[in-house]
Amino acid sequence: MIIIGERLNSTRHPVLQAMERRDKKYLIDEAKKQEAAGASYIDLNAAALLDKEVETLRWAIPILQKELSIPLSIDTPNPEAMEEALKVHRGQAIMNSLSGETKRIKTFLPLVSKYRPRVIALCLDDEGLPRSSDKELSIATRLVSLLRKEKLGLEDIFLDPLVRPVAVDQKAGELFLESLEKIKKNFPRIKTVAGISNISFGLPRRKLLNRTFLVLSLKAGLDAAILDPLDKEIMAALSAAEALLGKDPSLKNYLKFIRSGKW
Amino acid sequence: MIIIGERLNSTRHPVLQAMERRDKKYLIDEAKKQEAAGASYIDLNAAALLDKEVETLRWAIPILQKELSIPLSIDTPNPEAMEEALKVHRGQAIMNSLSGETKRIKTFLPLVSKYRPRVIALCLDDEGLPRSSDKELSIATRLVSLLRKEKLGLEDIFLDPLVRPVAVDQKAGELFLESLEKIKKNFPRIKTVAGISNISFGLPRRKLLNRTFLVLSLKAGLDAAILDPLDKEIMAALSAAEALLGKDPSLKNYLKFIRSGKW
Repeated sequence: MIIIGERLNSTRHPVLQAMERRDKKYLIDEAKKQEAAGASYIDLNAAALLDKEVETLRWAIPILQKELSIPLSIDTPNPEAMEEALKVHRGQAIMNSLSGETKRIKTFLPLVSKYRPRVIALCLDDEGLPRSSDKELSIATRLVSLLRKEKLGLEDIFLDPLVRPVAVDQKAGELFLESLEKIKKNFPRIKTVAGISNISFGLPRRKLLNRTFLVLSLKAGLDAAILDPLDKEIMAALSAAEALLGKDPSLKNYLKFIRSGKW
Repeated sequence: MIIIGERLNSTRHPVLQAMERRDKKYLIDEAKKQEAAGASYIDLNAAALLDKEVETLRWAIPILQKELSIPLSIDTPNPEAMEEALKVHRGQAIMNSLSGETKRIKTFLPLVSKYRPRVIALCLDDEGLPRSSDKELSIATRLVSLLRKEKLGLEDIFLDPLVRPVAVDQKAGELFLESLEKIKKNFPRIKTVAGISNISFGLPRRKLLNRTFLVLSLKAGLDAAILDPLDKEIMAALSAAEALLGKDPSLKNYLKFIRSGKW
């Protein structure tokens, strides 16, 4: 599983505060801990800083990249912030995210063309939340076709089926897994990704639900997850699931994880 | 998920000792705790008492049934012990287990006919461990046909695909899940069951692997599991998985489990 560390998100209050007071040390520490825990990308969201978002990203990206050996995933719906971030990012960042919404395509697709990032493509369009896995597949198909026209490689695309809270719709878990299976079957060479924690919104013991959902998602074909790699229980569940699903040759990673004493 | 409590097994040393010294209190306590924790059946295995197995079962069954409101699952390969147990058991017990082995069919099938228990039918025959899900399905098909000739109801059959240790064969997890899916697809009205803990044999942190495998198995169509209901983490994982897979209307059981403070 490819892990995109989710902790550097301005919706988390300590992160917002650290960004506001330009606390390099806090942000670097949060990023490095996630890298050490197994993240392959660090998600960076400064959207809660509103009119300071652009300057915060411009400040934070070089500081973080100096200390990290992995790229950032730039998490914003704001095209100006996305462009500034992609401009200052060294190497290939992830654009998080493109979607099938007209406005998003219009503003973000030119940035794909210009900066050639990896792209998370969210299976959502102007009609709002898709009600079926076929609808999600059709949005995915359209997004793949748009990205391929920009000559983006298959390896640079992450398709992101929507995760809705099971507290709102009891079929949300099944719908996600079904969409994921369908998308993976249709695009076996394209990676899938999800921010799985939305599944548990509004319910008690969210981490229990999140790690259980991650295990189910791995089986259904999830290649990458936006999660908190410092949550030892989710990392343990992931390690066990990879061992059980033949995704861990000789169980090497499982045994290494257990012996590391991290859990 | 239908839970068959696995703790009253003579391969566990304290249980063996309690059986040897005829410690009613210990056995009743183990059984009642499992019932309180959500078991629908209590598995009872006295096979390690060897030549004392039959008399131990004859002694223990009435004592346990007096205190329980759920039936026992009689776990023995010994036809004499099975017959004695089914004879003294009030109401419908589970026979654990019939298999496709010639000797087992010859000795156990007449007991099915005579005592009409529920039956766990293990997908194994004289050729030893099946190497493919198609082979397991064909054994399952033969066992269903034999049991239906005895006029056993579909609701009284539990098909048990083999769980092999992933430490021995890295494909063991996938093979089990594939067999389970195939069997469930072919026999949607027949229940499936497994003793999942065999998956983790020989590896560290077995409980982590067991509960992760249970989550994967629930998704693949497992209806019943032989497990330790006093393991709070496996019960939590199961509760979360049922909530996420639409098997818990209004998330009532999940919320009840969390609010009970059991975990």
